Amino acid sequence: MVQQELDGSTPSQDESRITSKSGYFVGVDIGGTNLRLALADSDGTILARSSTSTVGVRDAALIVHLIRDGVDALVTELSLSFDSVLALAAGAPGITDPNEGVVIATSYLMGWNNVPLRTMLEDACGVPAAVDNDVNLAALGESASGAARGINNFVFIAIGTGIGAGIVLNGQLFRGNAWSAGEIGYMLVPGTSEQPAERDKPGALEEMAGGEGAKTQWRNRWHESRTSLPEDALATEIFDHAVEGNVLAQEVLELSARTLAYAIHNIWLVLNCDLFVLGGSVGLHQALIEATGRVLATRSNRAQPRLVGSLLGPDAQLMGAIFLAIETAKTRVLAAAS
Amino acid sequence: MVQQELDGSTPSQDESRITSKSGYFVGVDIGGTNLRLALADSDGTILARSSTSTVGVRDAALIVHLIRDGVDALVTELSLSFDSVLALAAGAPGITDPNEGVVIATSYLMGWNNVPLRTMLEDACGVPAAVDNDVNLAALGESASGAARGINNFVFIAIGTGIGAGIVLNGQLFRGNAWSAGEIGYMLVPGTSEQPAERDKPGALEEMAGGEGAKTQWRNRWHESRTSLPEDALATEIFDHAVEGNVLAQEVLELSARTLAYAIHNIWLVLNCDLFVLGGSVGLHQALIEATGRVLATRSNRAQPRLVGSLLGPDAQLMGAIFLAIETAKTRVLAAAS
Repeated sequence: MVQQELDGSTPSQDESRITSKSGYFVGVDIGGTNLRLALADSDGTILARSSTSTVGVRDAALIVHLIRDGVDALVTELSLSFDSVLALAAGAPGITDPNEGVVIATSYLMGWNNVPLRTMLEDACGVPAAVDNDVNLAALGESASGAARGINNFVFIAIGTGIGAGIVLNGQLFRGNAWSAGEIGYMLVPGTSEQPAERDKPGALEEMAGGEGAKTQWRNRWHESRTSLPEDALATEIFDHAVEGNVLAQEVLELSARTLAYAIHNIWLVLNCDLFVLGGSVGLHQALIEATGRVLATRSNRAQPRLVGSLLGPDAQLMGAIFLAIETAKTRVLAAAS
Repeated sequence: MVQQELDGSTPSQDESRITSKSGYFVGVDIGGTNLRLALADSDGTILARSSTSTVGVRDAALIVHLIRDGVDALVTELSLSFDSVLALAAGAPGITDPNEGVVIATSYLMGWNNVPLRTMLEDACGVPAAVDNDVNLAALGESASGAARGINNFVFIAIGTGIGAGIVLNGQLFRGNAWSAGEIGYMLVPGTSEQPAERDKPGALEEMAGGEGAKTQWRNRWHESRTSLPEDALATEIFDHAVEGNVLAQEVLELSARTLAYAIHNIWLVLNCDLFVLGGSVGLHQALIEATGRVLATRSNRAQPRLVGSLLGPDAQLMGAIFLAIETAKTRVLAAAS
């Protein structure tokens, strides 16, 4: 599990409150299309959850309002008081400064710039809050209770509409100088465009692999005589279609897998980490994981990294947020006690 | 400077011996063509140095013998006793386990496998010794007294015959699970071969950039009507020729620079580190550094890393070895005192 910066002091009365069943924690996953919340006990066991559409919702204050309403609904559902919620943590789809609690920039889907999300959440909900990048939280989740338990060095790659990585080195999230470590959507591998990147457009890697890339590659090849799937099929539908034997879909799957395998190979050369965990709605597709693994196996002359699917699946970010909320409560209590 | 794992205890009598001018330290750079030694005082100031050809010399015992003879010659030159040498550190051109002091594998140039170099050096020289990968030592040198002083996260890229990187994260060398972090010679970028890597052959990146790559690309384009340089010119000669205006040489320089810039861009996406330091006999060529910087500047839509040449130049590895020798002596004395 990712180590937290806690000292080893004797549990105080406040701390034992956290580790008792009397306190609860909320994890939030702010996605481009859905806002998901989960309320958990101090073991990280989810007791209730909710999901709200965020399609068309870009305003940060409105998102915070939806989160506050969501927490209200969860505690009401479980007949708890709001006061029993000890902390809340949220994952945002963008570059996030967890120290300051600020979302520095999100993709074109949200359009946020320097949003002080932690303060906004604490003001709205009245509990200690923490924020981080959603892919970092997914890596934290996999480290705490998923496919990377006990692994000191690994990379979680989230593949949804875009592609991003959460990097754990020496048991800690590695964030880089400007909180941008793992922003691999712009990686250049054989086959990607060499055109300069454009702001608010998919990166070179994302044009070839990932949800948007697979859709683009499918549209480029599509002809009604060659498939029963529509021209605007989703990546996961295309991959299902490939498994069913459609040649056009297999081309797109192989291209995604090859591009992704090259990216993983490159990251592995830099970090020499044993394990890569694939997650995200597209990254969880078993056919993509298997095809990527096959390409990866051809790349190395000595060793090669392990490639596995996320164990927590769509809950990776949410579980990471819950663990961050639990750690946030502990840290605040210890800070207050010292 | 790269932090060493030392406690903050009061200097003992033994320790003050190290920090006095009475003790000396030897740094060794074991290259594919040259064995270089330097003897320094406790400030890292080089007092004497030597260089011996290792062309055709592959046997590890013979290299160790040459090192012992070299130390002898250096102390004699300075009218010192052998006993005044307090520690020795050597950089090896291959994957090295610094904890066990074993060179796990070198390239085809040396052909070493699991050579217990530290023990061999200690037995031959009778002083505490340490070994590490030569590029890691160059990164340590740049961190201690070169272009990366005070920088917590940076990457040193050594470009000689091949290409390798030394990675410093959070002020410490990051080595990966199998001591292979930074083995970027096999990186795949647009333009590199997608053929599976072959053992003991240059990697995909090394075929396009680096000393061997530039030579290969030059040979592929060479025609006597288009240049006064021979077909078997060296990379640095080709780059000089490009600066003089030869179009063929400029093509090779631009290809090297583009390939290298793509690799740096990819590493930067993973690590989000501010600084890249280019070193090695080929990497120090100013025309390559400038051309690479120009390509890199076109890649990013937001920020970009700084790219500079090594300050220590050909001495980077040697200086890193000297600093490692100094730290080795301190660590051994502290361990003995505790």
